Amino acid sequence: MAINAQPVLIAGRWREAHAAGTFQSDDPVARTPLPEAFPVSTWKDCDEALDAAVEAAEAMRRLSGEQIAAFLEKYADRIEARKDDLVATAHAETALPVSPRLADVELPRTTGQLRQAAAAAREGSWAMPTIDTKNNIRSYLAPLGPVAVFGPNNFPFAFNSAAGGDFAAAVAAGNPVIAKANTTQPATSRIFAEEAAYAVEETGLPAATVQLLYRTSHADGERLVADPRLGATAYTGSRAAGLNLKAAADKAGKPIYLELSSINPVVVLPGALKSRMSEIADEFTQSCLLGAGQFCTNPGLVILLKSLESDTFVSTVIQRFQAAPAGTLLSKGVESSLAEGVTKLRKAGARLLTGDAPGDGPGYCRKNTLLEIRGAQFLDDPHVFQTEAFGNASLVVIADDIAQAEHLIERLEGNLTGCIYSDAEGADDAIYDRLAPRLGRRVGRLLNDKMPTGVAVSPAMNHGGPYPATGHPGFTAVGIPAALRRFGMLQCFDNVRPSRLPALLQDKNPTGRTWRFIDGQWTQGDIG
Amino acid sequence: MAINAQPVLIAGRWREAHAAGTFQSDDPVARTPLPEAFPVSTWKDCDEALDAAVEAAEAMRRLSGEQIAAFLEKYADRIEARKDDLVATAHAETALPVSPRLADVELPRTTGQLRQAAAAAREGSWAMPTIDTKNNIRSYLAPLGPVAVFGPNNFPFAFNSAAGGDFAAAVAAGNPVIAKANTTQPATSRIFAEEAAYAVEETGLPAATVQLLYRTSHADGERLVADPRLGATAYTGSRAAGLNLKAAADKAGKPIYLELSSINPVVVLPGALKSRMSEIADEFTQSCLLGAGQFCTNPGLVILLKSLESDTFVSTVIQRFQAAPAGTLLSKGVESSLAEGVTKLRKAGARLLTGDAPGDGPGYCRKNTLLEIRGAQFLDDPHVFQTEAFGNASLVVIADDIAQAEHLIERLEGNLTGCIYSDAEGADDAIYDRLAPRLGRRVGRLLNDKMPTGVAVSPAMNHGGPYPATGHPGFTAVGIPAALRRFGMLQCFDNVRPSRLPALLQDKNPTGRTWRFIDGQWTQGDIG
Repeated sequence: MAINAQPVLIAGRWREAHAAGTFQSDDPVARTPLPEAFPVSTWKDCDEALDAAVEAAEAMRRLSGEQIAAFLEKYADRIEARKDDLVATAHAETALPVSPRLADVELPRTTGQLRQAAAAAREGSWAMPTIDTKNNIRSYLAPLGPVAVFGPNNFPFAFNSAAGGDFAAAVAAGNPVIAKANTTQPATSRIFAEEAAYAVEETGLPAATVQLLYRTSHADGERLVADPRLGATAYTGSRAAGLNLKAAADKAGKPIYLELSSINPVVVLPGALKSRMSEIADEFTQSCLLGAGQFCTNPGLVILLKSLESDTFVSTVIQRFQAAPAGTLLSKGVESSLAEGVTKLRKAGARLLTGDAPGDGPGYCRKNTLLEIRGAQFLDDPHVFQTEAFGNASLVVIADDIAQAEHLIERLEGNLTGCIYSDAEGADDAIYDRLAPRLGRRVGRLLNDKMPTGVAVSPAMNHGGPYPATGHPGFTAVGIPAALRRFGMLQCFDNVRPSRLPALLQDKNPTGRTWRFIDGQWTQGDIG
Repeated sequence: MAINAQPVLIAGRWREAHAAGTFQSDDPVARTPLPEAFPVSTWKDCDEALDAAVEAAEAMRRLSGEQIAAFLEKYADRIEARKDDLVATAHAETALPVSPRLADVELPRTTGQLRQAAAAAREGSWAMPTIDTKNNIRSYLAPLGPVAVFGPNNFPFAFNSAAGGDFAAAVAAGNPVIAKANTTQPATSRIFAEEAAYAVEETGLPAATVQLLYRTSHADGERLVADPRLGATAYTGSRAAGLNLKAAADKAGKPIYLELSSINPVVVLPGALKSRMSEIADEFTQSCLLGAGQFCTNPGLVILLKSLESDTFVSTVIQRFQAAPAGTLLSKGVESSLAEGVTKLRKAGARLLTGDAPGDGPGYCRKNTLLEIRGAQFLDDPHVFQTEAFGNASLVVIADDIAQAEHLIERLEGNLTGCIYSDAEGADDAIYDRLAPRLGRRVGRLLNDKMPTGVAVSPAMNHGGPYPATGHPGFTAVGIPAALRRFGMLQCFDNVRPSRLPALLQDKNPTGRTWRFIDGQWTQGDIG
């Protein structure tokens, strides 16, 4: 089917897609389609990408960490050189502010991630080389094979399927990536893939190290993640689509790393409200409305204990929500699912405090929305009151007492984060001790006195958590080197002759600074 | 339903099961049921065990590694004190030889695993505490919650659900275990659970640290692994039963670690045969017939290149197989599935070289069996020729040439192990270089000049591999500390006040020797 649409990147070549149709992304401010048409690929494109990726994976297994690092760094440089184009295009596709958000925060974060991943590839410690000299058994995490990356709508740069965190981790671990663009950002993704392809060529990596498809049918997406040629999948996005992919991958025994929905409960204790109510209201408002609330770690649930202070806090937040401008939402889909989520909460009995109406701006927009329920309501139907209303909305739950707050927390699903604000002088310590252990094991990251929306790219970060926040509670999508380990397979060499061992497992430390676990000790030294 | 059967161990108490019926295990030599009746538990038993396990998990989270280590060591001591009873009972249930196998190999291995796990719990390094001092973000692997362990039939001690490798790893990681006995070994499992319960009491661990059920319906097993109260499942056994559990756990988003079937390909290259044919035939025969071939890593597929030497090797192995006694099989089920597997291979076109007949002994027994096919036959139907015939049988594939051997290897499913025997002087090196990379990424452990049946409990061991050998290629069931990490959830503490941090994440190294990854360096030191 010949279709006048943008080409796809397969096997190092931009070529016409085998397309079943086309789509356009929207301008979220004008609420109208952007001019360019992008192809909906058929299985033939996926199939060719998989074949090319297998060949690339083969070749990449023979590369050193240094060669992979050189590519990632060259790519980061190229992204910086094309910054204006990227920022303008992403702004047009997402309406996220040019500055500071896109130009000064997200783009530097993206190149920073690529450079951190390069450093990790160069050092090799991520692979956890482990050597038992007595038995001559040696193992490490080897590249897993081609990785399909499905990027989300809310981070056009930092989680772009062709440039973001999952991409950087998969490549740094030695794997080629088949990027499936988020359909709200095809043009942004294309620019990344263009620069990636140039960097691939300049640094001599296999042609299919980076490939780009814009869209497939759901059936083909499920076929892709289950294909025997694929090593693993990384997906960030909606729960419904993610769980369909998970079912397909699970059935085929293929690893899939998912970052799904999360409502990120925030508990504010009485002593904290007594001493710094207004400050916390500011922090909460800012965190909740940042980027129109379209963050994975957006605080969508606030748990308070019944008190005058809590009432004052809620009144203050209402004022702040009303005073703050409502941001433009990423897409029509986000706008409608936000409205639907809020409607669902209201139908279940949540009281509207403010918002739940079309926003004032010209674009996709909903007024900043705050809802409230009592703890008993939550306990009557914990499932419905954990509906994610992705965007600038949050639900306050007023618990009658500490025991009820404990029960509330015990009914929480797995979340990426959970926060507790408590009195700095210790007035809340007894309550903290009752609530924190319960909250802690239901979230990937427990915060104190800090809102969850900043996700530092730190080796100690966990951007993960129990199901259904993700598919496995042992892995993180952010944080290097840990994020790379998702894309390794444990390979063991038993009595294998020295010259046949991978460099990381030979007696001599190949970089002079790779951390290796040798006879029970972590060391950067050689053997013998 | 009141049934005269052995009690189950729930919440620290041996009590009558809520049973739907009873079963008896067989004496594999006499081919008759052993006298004791064991209960088939209904969901009510599972439900109570889960409730008790949640409570135990709660309490265990507050224990130090030292306390858990003390339990594991006490338990190991108690197992040694009850060695005669364990060996006699396991021998009656499995027909595995008392000595050396049960008394001198498997029992010391089991107590050794428990003590290694104790040392890992005490040291804490398995949890990979990771600290970013600049951002004050700290993370580690925390206990995941109650673990259900399903033990296999072929290791009554070392993989017993109430004493073996998965048990030791789950407990050392801080989790209570619900052991589901293998139904061929209920009495052996009961003795372990008795000693575990005494050790729990003596060391002051929560009563439900170890619980024991003997059998459930398949439906209840699937419900158990999917239950919200469960943290994870470890299963070792048949592929069919394992995949049903996996489907149930996957759907519920619960981690499940599986060790399924594996045919463990062995490639013997021409130069190796020229220089040490007879020696390799001995090694292969011994590995293949050890324990009547009932090892997860039993070499069930031998790949040879067409040559006179290969013919001689096969003839030699036939003689060895005919000369060696056929061991007693573990159960009627093993006997019939071995016969069925061989029949399936023969129907698909494999030529019988020796065996495929009832054994001479009184017990469950099949003659040592060797089959052969040509490479082209394998390539015509790679699926059927990878049928696992679990027991004392192996299939030889004769490849026409190196290119065909490459194709063969590329059609292999995921396996636990793969071996290549090659000439010591380098005559096979060119062929090795073509085959080893292809084999290596289809197996968890690549061996040189060594049969796969020994699985050292080494930190560098990988007893794992790509699907369908296991459910995820990044994890190992053997090897400490790596095996413990399967039972941890990544927990991150962001800006959490110092006194509220778990001991492993505080500034001071709590043991003085826990390895922690602090600001990009592995160290046993304190912060600041």
